Amino acid sequence: MGVVTDRRPVVRVREGARAARPDTLAVEEPLMVRLVGPAASPVGGTTPATGTSSGSEALTVTMRTPGDDFDLVAGWLVSEGAVGAPDDIVAMRLCPDEDNTVEVALARGVEPPRSRAFATTSACGVCGSDTVVEVRAGLRWPVASDPVTVGADVIASLPDLLRERQRAFDRTGGLHAAGLFTADGEPLYVREDVGRHNAVDKVVGAALRDGALPAAGTVLQVSGRASFELVQKAVRAGIPVLSAISAPSTLAVDLADECGLTLLGFVRGESMNVYTWADRVR
Amino acid sequence: MGVVTDRRPVVRVREGARAARPDTLAVEEPLMVRLVGPAASPVGGTTPATGTSSGSEALTVTMRTPGDDFDLVAGWLVSEGAVGAPDDIVAMRLCPDEDNTVEVALARGVEPPRSRAFATTSACGVCGSDTVVEVRAGLRWPVASDPVTVGADVIASLPDLLRERQRAFDRTGGLHAAGLFTADGEPLYVREDVGRHNAVDKVVGAALRDGALPAAGTVLQVSGRASFELVQKAVRAGIPVLSAISAPSTLAVDLADECGLTLLGFVRGESMNVYTWADRVR
Repeated sequence: MGVVTDRRPVVRVREGARAARPDTLAVEEPLMVRLVGPAASPVGGTTPATGTSSGSEALTVTMRTPGDDFDLVAGWLVSEGAVGAPDDIVAMRLCPDEDNTVEVALARGVEPPRSRAFATTSACGVCGSDTVVEVRAGLRWPVASDPVTVGADVIASLPDLLRERQRAFDRTGGLHAAGLFTADGEPLYVREDVGRHNAVDKVVGAALRDGALPAAGTVLQVSGRASFELVQKAVRAGIPVLSAISAPSTLAVDLADECGLTLLGFVRGESMNVYTWADRVR
Repeated sequence: MGVVTDRRPVVRVREGARAARPDTLAVEEPLMVRLVGPAASPVGGTTPATGTSSGSEALTVTMRTPGDDFDLVAGWLVSEGAVGAPDDIVAMRLCPDEDNTVEVALARGVEPPRSRAFATTSACGVCGSDTVVEVRAGLRWPVASDPVTVGADVIASLPDLLRERQRAFDRTGGLHAAGLFTADGEPLYVREDVGRHNAVDKVVGAALRDGALPAAGTVLQVSGRASFELVQKAVRAGIPVLSAISAPSTLAVDLADECGLTLLGFVRGESMNVYTWADRVR
């Protein structure tokens, strides 16, 4: 468990008066994800535990709030389309002599994620509709056929349920959250992070590690807006309903429509906007 | 100028009643940045204008709101530490036959940005304080010595000034904004985007292209939170004051402190928190 909040001095200006005091802030730290070969046997193996191990390759560096790092890495691998089952990840461990590094070993035959810039075709040009088609074509699980329905009253209750479980937000005002709920509004996983994408990855990774993917019949509630990337993370985890407190983008709506995800935005009090697959909302 | 907003059908649920209608959303589309060699002469040159030109390399793909794409690419190059003067960019152009692609040619001797995962040392481990030291060591312009001071009343006025200039936000509720202001609160550049990082890059890029970097004596106002990356973008553009409406993270404060940036958060009404270099706020 990492340090989620920390203190820094601050000068508060209120009605012209200044007061110096400590302030509680959300911690942000880099996390490096390194890939080690299955043969390298990262847990209990005989290869050197640290340093520039020749069998290790940097996959990504992300800025995140420490804590739930294995969930974050596992969920990121799901979101990137690389893994779908707990056994796709052979092992994860915190690098013992260095902070903020997770080593992960994937099962044989599991392709690690590649940088989007390099994964993209070398042809000149990218467009949103091609991206949408590409994501849909690569889905492991169809969410369009998920028969779940959710009451509008349940959806309306999720932002408060999420907020109640945000332990660090009240102290900092600076953390995003994501929560996976049953269609009856029972919380399954809630995670916080300075990055809203990370909060979703942590939730998805926790579900993967519990063997709970595809997350059929669930609702993902997020604290901010709904971007293309958040919709992509939801559908790649097999989640059929995504509810956001703020606005979605056009491409988020287009991807949700194409993949069969029910996308809600501006969920505030008893009112909400249903952008796609509205029949799932009772 | 790209299409900033577009319409999608929505089902609005209000007090149990449903109504179908069109809704205006912020457009999100991928943008690919491709690097062409200076010898390839991308503007008016004799090399093929499109396709898989052999001299062209994908630098990044980002999701952004179309419009101000040259500003976005130029600012991203500044934020990555690659360029600092207008002449560092020899040419930019929209790929004529494909949407959402900007080709950029850098001057000889200008190193293009590299992916953070690959740029990082191959040693196991990353930490926030090393990252802070690395950013400070690589700064083109010292912001610590910027003698500017700003009235607390000016800071307090910036969120409203920014909001007034957000043309697309009122229609969508879904766009972040960044604005560069003089120390007297005069707006210099205001840009919007679904991504808050992109909004800052667009502002920085507009300033670069005007020959206005380093942006000494200015204040950057952002619509959301202050992360490490936003502070990094500010200091790499030579901006001495960054004001955010919401919370900063620990690493944002640490980087601001180390680099000599005045960082403000929770700027709401007449009250605000000054996290670093508070002497600049009168």
